[in-house]
Amino acid sequence: MRRQAQDTSVDVVRMRLVVAYDGSGFRGFAAQDGQRTVAGELSGAIATVARHEVELVCAGRTDAGVHASGQVVHVDVRRDVSPERLAKAVNAMLGPTVVVRSASEAPPGFDARWSARARRYRYLVLRCDTPDPLLAPLTWHVRDCLELRSMACASDSLIGEHDFSAFCRKAPGAPDGQPITRRVLEARWSEQPIVERELAEGEVLLRFDISAQSFCHHMVRSIVGTLVDVGRGRRPASDITRLLRSGERSHATTIAPPQGLCLVGVDY
Amino acid sequence: MRRQAQDTSVDVVRMRLVVAYDGSGFRGFAAQDGQRTVAGELSGAIATVARHEVELVCAGRTDAGVHASGQVVHVDVRRDVSPERLAKAVNAMLGPTVVVRSASEAPPGFDARWSARARRYRYLVLRCDTPDPLLAPLTWHVRDCLELRSMACASDSLIGEHDFSAFCRKAPGAPDGQPITRRVLEARWSEQPIVERELAEGEVLLRFDISAQSFCHHMVRSIVGTLVDVGRGRRPASDITRLLRSGERSHATTIAPPQGLCLVGVDY
Repeated sequence: MRRQAQDTSVDVVRMRLVVAYDGSGFRGFAAQDGQRTVAGELSGAIATVARHEVELVCAGRTDAGVHASGQVVHVDVRRDVSPERLAKAVNAMLGPTVVVRSASEAPPGFDARWSARARRYRYLVLRCDTPDPLLAPLTWHVRDCLELRSMACASDSLIGEHDFSAFCRKAPGAPDGQPITRRVLEARWSEQPIVERELAEGEVLLRFDISAQSFCHHMVRSIVGTLVDVGRGRRPASDITRLLRSGERSHATTIAPPQGLCLVGVDY
Repeated sequence: MRRQAQDTSVDVVRMRLVVAYDGSGFRGFAAQDGQRTVAGELSGAIATVARHEVELVCAGRTDAGVHASGQVVHVDVRRDVSPERLAKAVNAMLGPTVVVRSASEAPPGFDARWSARARRYRYLVLRCDTPDPLLAPLTWHVRDCLELRSMACASDSLIGEHDFSAFCRKAPGAPDGQPITRRVLEARWSEQPIVERELAEGEVLLRFDISAQSFCHHMVRSIVGTLVDVGRGRRPASDITRLLRSGERSHATTIAPPQGLCLVGVDY
């Protein structure tokens, strides 16, 4: 007992890591027994460097197949492991699929999950007739024409504090009827260039940027699925406001596929 | 015998296909026994649709791991197979890894290889400290700082007709001393935005565009490797002219890795 207490008070330091990963081959971020997860790989690699078991806490528990370029994680490790050495050793083991982009000693009281003021996600939609082999792992391929102006108009109504129940997957056994209030800070569509090749006529790469203090489960993908339905002309733009007011869970039925989604950053 | 002659004269039409592929999992374009190649997969799929054996001819035989967004292929198939049906059926079988972007009846005398006036390639280099999980399959990750101005200056000296022996891999048993003359039409570096995430300080995505009537084996990757060595300060920009004048095979020793390379288009 004495030994453990001494270790905790003297030898342990909290590190803050900015982590990027290609989510394709993972069952999401959070560790699950018998599944390949980002947290599983990452904590295994850190434990090898630190030579003790570690527990990771992240800012955003991304789903299976979702990517990150700016996930933030904290982990408590022995003080004699320098942040530089930790990042270098982990990248040698897991890169380029999982990469520690930066590592530093966390400020006092820092918690990757609870200290976060905002999470920023982006979603990529590729509108074209045939799929694109090089962009397929990063985008949702949509064949229908998309009316960007109505998508932009619809996404404006997401900004501010609302009950997002209609855009959240109902957890098994969770009670109905309680509002799931979230404050969306930004929700914006933009057209992007494709660096990989020339665009053919009618092709367009759309990027959706959304940030909020926090998100509920499947919220970004449900929002994108609904906005793309607006762009396709399957729903009026006013449906967003109607869904936000309905307060009923999982009313937005189109869920955008995971590979278009990426956690790009966390603000503290 | 009569049946075969009849089939050839009456029922066969030449199709021109524009093909895109993610080269990661392939041993290159050209069919090889017992290897997974783009031509192998594609001719298998076309044969299934056409219900007869086919032979593919392509404009550029890309190496293992090299991508294409605008490869051009010709293939002779029975006239009752429409281009639209062929493209749709092949994409259902092979997409999104290999995709027929367009299919049409070829003009008289068309040959994907011999009618080509120019091949256009692009190469992507990512200059940053840590690898990028989402861009890793499409870029060469370089840690050293790169001096873009000297790379641009060096690439200017490639334009025009030269003996590119120094940038070509010597084929086994090929005689030495014969010049390998090629005419380079364009060779240009540009800085690109990264749509996937915000760039950190010092990070840069560079795109190299090069076109020529034709290329010899490993030519683009040898050129890019040498130009990046110039950017790193390991060679002077004047080395390009020196290598072009040397006439000796395989003198450019740095060969850029395949995943940064993509055949973007062919002009006829």
